[in-house]
Amino acid sequence: MRQVVMTEPGQVVVEDRPDPVVEQPTDAVIRLAATCVCGSDLWPYRGVQQVDHQVMGHEYVGVVEAVGPQVRTVKPGDFVVGSFWASDNTCEICRAGYQSHCVHRTVMGSIGTQSERARIPLADGTLVATPGMPDAGLVPSLLAASDVLGTGWFAADAAQAGPGKTVAVVGDGAVGLLAVLAARQMGAERIIAFSRHPGRQRLAREFGATDIVEERGEEGAEKVKEMTGGLGAHSVVEAVGTQQAMMQAIHATRPGGHVGFVGVSHDVSIPGDLLFGTGIHLHGGPAPVRRYLPELIRLIWEREIDPGRVFDLTLPLEQAAEGYRAMDERRAVKVLLTP
Amino acid sequence: MRQVVMTEPGQVVVEDRPDPVVEQPTDAVIRLAATCVCGSDLWPYRGVQQVDHQVMGHEYVGVVEAVGPQVRTVKPGDFVVGSFWASDNTCEICRAGYQSHCVHRTVMGSIGTQSERARIPLADGTLVATPGMPDAGLVPSLLAASDVLGTGWFAADAAQAGPGKTVAVVGDGAVGLLAVLAARQMGAERIIAFSRHPGRQRLAREFGATDIVEERGEEGAEKVKEMTGGLGAHSVVEAVGTQQAMMQAIHATRPGGHVGFVGVSHDVSIPGDLLFGTGIHLHGGPAPVRRYLPELIRLIWEREIDPGRVFDLTLPLEQAAEGYRAMDERRAVKVLLTP
Repeated sequence: MRQVVMTEPGQVVVEDRPDPVVEQPTDAVIRLAATCVCGSDLWPYRGVQQVDHQVMGHEYVGVVEAVGPQVRTVKPGDFVVGSFWASDNTCEICRAGYQSHCVHRTVMGSIGTQSERARIPLADGTLVATPGMPDAGLVPSLLAASDVLGTGWFAADAAQAGPGKTVAVVGDGAVGLLAVLAARQMGAERIIAFSRHPGRQRLAREFGATDIVEERGEEGAEKVKEMTGGLGAHSVVEAVGTQQAMMQAIHATRPGGHVGFVGVSHDVSIPGDLLFGTGIHLHGGPAPVRRYLPELIRLIWEREIDPGRVFDLTLPLEQAAEGYRAMDERRAVKVLLTP
Repeated sequence: MRQVVMTEPGQVVVEDRPDPVVEQPTDAVIRLAATCVCGSDLWPYRGVQQVDHQVMGHEYVGVVEAVGPQVRTVKPGDFVVGSFWASDNTCEICRAGYQSHCVHRTVMGSIGTQSERARIPLADGTLVATPGMPDAGLVPSLLAASDVLGTGWFAADAAQAGPGKTVAVVGDGAVGLLAVLAARQMGAERIIAFSRHPGRQRLAREFGATDIVEERGEEGAEKVKEMTGGLGAHSVVEAVGTQQAMMQAIHATRPGGHVGFVGVSHDVSIPGDLLFGTGIHLHGGPAPVRRYLPELIRLIWEREIDPGRVFDLTLPLEQAAEGYRAMDERRAVKVLLTP
């Protein structure tokens, strides 16, 4: 089969690799209907993270082709969505809703899903079947559920977005934009998106943002305080992963408020006295997307939400390199790849 | 009146100062029934924090002597307990339960309550009257409610201690010990106290600790993981304020678990990637004691809890210096001063 490999920073190729097979009795093998490039794939692409001939991709939807003898909840022919962490969904951590920290977890990025087929470990715990074969128009949204929607949803949930709340979102990438959508679904009263990019501002507003702030860093946080009677937002999502973004998020939050952070932290350090003094709640990390998948699939299936709109460029898998370039240069919010 | 002053690190004196008066229409003046030395008073005492002829003390119970014309909820003759932050209890932040971040807050340490009398700003928002004049035996417990109990309670609450939970407490000072008591009251199943001090271990057990761990730092965290099937505690209280204590707390917590921190942060820095990778919740800061005061006073009044047992040395106000020395040398857990 064909599979995307990052040979070194900035170098993305598509190679022939052996077709995956069921290795463990709990495995499934799926044929990908769609996959995509993640904002986090840009860290190694830009050389911020080491990379050496690494298979790429951790987002996926597709059709089950084979299952191991212990798999019970999905069968060949099912259309499935899974998280970027494979999880058993039965351990104590999974049962508490933290499947991304499952005691038996496997990160799908180590297997790579920018490919024609993929082996999915712990298929019963990881995969959720859709009610039937989706229309082609639903596939991008279902793919979004696999990571960016689930991650934005977790961020909004971790920030305790809800009725009566003012929510601010740092980061106008796909995750940030979908955190806006999530906050709207959760009933937030006011949603402030930080963005300087006209196209992303537009999408943010379509997803439910009521206000756009172009200022960044301390200035951006100050602006949110001005807009909230000097107090700050109740809920702030941090969907970037830099020191500036984290500080912006913390400073934009009112005392007792909540920061939900999902940007993969790169050299971020949080001063203890700042956290002490501000009195905020801080929670985040790799999103337990599996917790939300059944609900997200339902919302997509019933066409209540359309998160697939974050994909503004679709390319054949063979043109993955162009997809990475487009995202790196911010010409595309998110690139869908069709195997 | 007589009032405690720290002239420089390590130097505590009792001086004559003018009696406080009602300055604002919302003020009250109280005559102290008891006051005490706080663990946080040791930071300047040890020179970790700057100090120069500073009035000391922020914990207090006593009898109202005078009130300003706008005070409605307490009157001369009432026995009252207040928090170490004066707060209006009506602003949006107070109404959300974060009175320690009230938009009109005043820190009582700037007024000083290791004294015979004290002016209490925003008396209606700050003070809670007891149902009547307390027996002498209840005074230490009511005094504890003013800070150490309220702070330990907030820490346990921030760590989401509750039924079925395993709670670990870093710090065997008065706040840590009372976080044990709080966790017990909140119904925690298992309470692990970190302590190497036999007397404090004993008190921790009397307050409800089911296990004592003597190891510290990474070793201490490892021990908690061993005791919890490799997962870590659901809830961890950090009641010290050092880097080691914060790291111990984070590492002892399971993914998705909660750290409640109330140790005043000194040079603490939390790596973003650690927080991201562990998936814990982090919340803390100066405790909004006022939120809990009515309930704490009720529990003390009905003799359901006896937090005053953290006071293991009582001295006249005039011997404040000896009180500081005893706490600095860890000869006393907490020193009560009688004006």
